[in-house]
Amino acid sequence: MPFRGGRSSDNLQNRNWKGRPPKHLAGFLLLAMNLDFQKSGGLVTAVIQDHSSGRVLMVGYMNDEAFRLTVATGYATFYSRSRKKLWMKGESSGHRLAVKEISTDCDRDAVLIQVELLGPGACHKGYRSCFFRRLENGEWRVAEERTYDPSAIYGGRQ
Amino acid sequence: MPFRGGRSSDNLQNRNWKGRPPKHLAGFLLLAMNLDFQKSGGLVTAVIQDHSSGRVLMVGYMNDEAFRLTVATGYATFYSRSRKKLWMKGESSGHRLAVKEISTDCDRDAVLIQVELLGPGACHKGYRSCFFRRLENGEWRVAEERTYDPSAIYGGRQ
Repeated sequence: MPFRGGRSSDNLQNRNWKGRPPKHLAGFLLLAMNLDFQKSGGLVTAVIQDHSSGRVLMVGYMNDEAFRLTVATGYATFYSRSRKKLWMKGESSGHRLAVKEISTDCDRDAVLIQVELLGPGACHKGYRSCFFRRLENGEWRVAEERTYDPSAIYGGRQ
Repeated sequence: MPFRGGRSSDNLQNRNWKGRPPKHLAGFLLLAMNLDFQKSGGLVTAVIQDHSSGRVLMVGYMNDEAFRLTVATGYATFYSRSRKKLWMKGESSGHRLAVKEISTDCDRDAVLIQVELLGPGACHKGYRSCFFRRLENGEWRVAEERTYDPSAIYGGRQ
């Protein structure tokens, strides 16, 4: 079932409107502003959860544009704090995160996004979840097997 | 089953040692430093997940001391960005988060904490999860019932 959380999402991908947004997008833009992007310098925290298994796959950060693109395209898009730019998860690996449901918290400074992971892993290190290290007796230990070979997907770029 | 992720946790609650920490705590302190607190100005993001239902209950932030206290006491402790101080979840409501398991992600700048929620709700607004608002047709809508009356717990302080 396609994600229906957004409104008038078709137009946002081809944003060649100048000046004020079209009237039918006003509610959608208001929605994005309704999140509290100020507490973290323009970002909200985005928790990505596998909608079928419940596993938390990764945590990313979204500015208002990344959040709008996530809603508009139906694929999770983040703002990279280190590279200072937008990135759609899976743009190089193909392992995209298809949005199923979006929630926000009481403070409106975090979003929880239920997704279908398209591919064997959300983590660029080759694991299904980025949370593959567990605290055991005071040390972080890898707690699961890789689900794919990251060098075959990312080459030398990881 | 008590949480056994930490090491020598008994001593951290009564931190009246001066100067250098006791030798048996060195590994534990190294562990905390092993997380990347720099990307978010001294904080890591902490995702709190109900260990039995898989529901994401809340997102908070921990500085190194909050993380150490979480491991040492077995109860999730956060750093409040607005109040600029440590707070143990449940210190006023009694709705504490008993730690079952802790994971970290590939970047080591986020932790995922599996907990048992002691009480009817993790959210100070009266809901089981802070993520009680869902995006529907471009608007945030409350998607569930309250599990307790927050005014009876928090009084006028919420």
